[in-house]
Amino acid sequence: MEWDLYVITDSRLSRGRPVVEVVRQALEGGARIIQLREKEMPPRELVALGRELRSLIKSFNATFIVNDRLDVALAVDADGVHVGQDDLPAAVARRLLGPGKILGVSVATVEEALRALADGADYLGVGSIYATGTKPDAGAPIGPARIKEIKSRVNLPVVAIGGINAANAGEVIAAGADGVAVISAVVGADDVRAAAAELLAVVRRSKSGLLRQDNF
Amino acid sequence: MEWDLYVITDSRLSRGRPVVEVVRQALEGGARIIQLREKEMPPRELVALGRELRSLIKSFNATFIVNDRLDVALAVDADGVHVGQDDLPAAVARRLLGPGKILGVSVATVEEALRALADGADYLGVGSIYATGTKPDAGAPIGPARIKEIKSRVNLPVVAIGGINAANAGEVIAAGADGVAVISAVVGADDVRAAAAELLAVVRRSKSGLLRQDNF
Repeated sequence: MEWDLYVITDSRLSRGRPVVEVVRQALEGGARIIQLREKEMPPRELVALGRELRSLIKSFNATFIVNDRLDVALAVDADGVHVGQDDLPAAVARRLLGPGKILGVSVATVEEALRALADGADYLGVGSIYATGTKPDAGAPIGPARIKEIKSRVNLPVVAIGGINAANAGEVIAAGADGVAVISAVVGADDVRAAAAELLAVVRRSKSGLLRQDNF
Repeated sequence: MEWDLYVITDSRLSRGRPVVEVVRQALEGGARIIQLREKEMPPRELVALGRELRSLIKSFNATFIVNDRLDVALAVDADGVHVGQDDLPAAVARRLLGPGKILGVSVATVEEALRALADGADYLGVGSIYATGTKPDAGAPIGPARIKEIKSRVNLPVVAIGGINAANAGEVIAAGADGVAVISAVVGADDVRAAAAELLAVVRRSKSGLLRQDNF
């Protein structure tokens, strides 16, 4: 999978633009993973929206993850589900999902990362790296060094999350993240497509810089 | 199944008493179906509570239903799930649940009841029968006559819901309901066990009165 740019929806931050339109622009800008995360949306609407997104994301050959609601993920045949530390326990999610679907787990510490690995996670969302207004309950920022610490212990893809934008994305990639996950930096941007493309360029530039460092 | 008394949890209405304790008393009072419905509880807590309730309810040989979250119902091996008109579509819930689990659907009209039947519902929650403070979004009360109308068209067990108490439970049974579903009348009562027992007695008295009418 391509982890470079992982975009999470939030219709409350999308300035009235329909989620499907915002996601289309994010995909056009180069997002390779889309997570449907609409905490206030009734499940029936979530299923209807998820079905629309399913086709759209498939047409871009990208990956579709549903936040928290494993039942909705199964209902719309998403590629996987992402759970936080207050959501379904990862081991339960793994069991209900079966082996064929992707399971992502939010972690903030090495301990949580080791537990997620044991529970069957396919990738980790590590954060919040920086302070963020999107998740006021996300706790104190853990900083990019934590990514390095987790990557040195747990052999899973890591997407860094929390307050990431074009100015600091290079730093989290340099710390070992496989990609960056963003909400407001993309779905809240004036030009969603351009914001996604810019972030992707920073991530790729940072990765190729690291490759050069490795080579010399 | 015994539909007489169906009790739905709501920790916000339980006056600080733990859900497990309230449910135990409701079961001791004669509740035969318990629905876990905690809209504000994080999924991880819901799973932990659901596991506790699972054992307790099994020990009373009663039935355990989870509201809305089909994934939580599967996670705790509940007997079934109950969906409203804004929750997972009933046909989707039926598909994800498989044939072995119970599917309940909230309906307010004959049309919704016919759709629920077609979608694979095992029973209907019909309401709100009377005005209720528990679900401010429940819409205008439909009155007990609607139960009769639905029962004449749809051959499924019906539990009446919405503003039901010992004073009006007889009327909804007389209208054809197989049982009554309550939240505050039991979980908010001074004496949960006594409130359940009283409601059950009214339901049974009303049913045996109807039987006598049928016989003579």
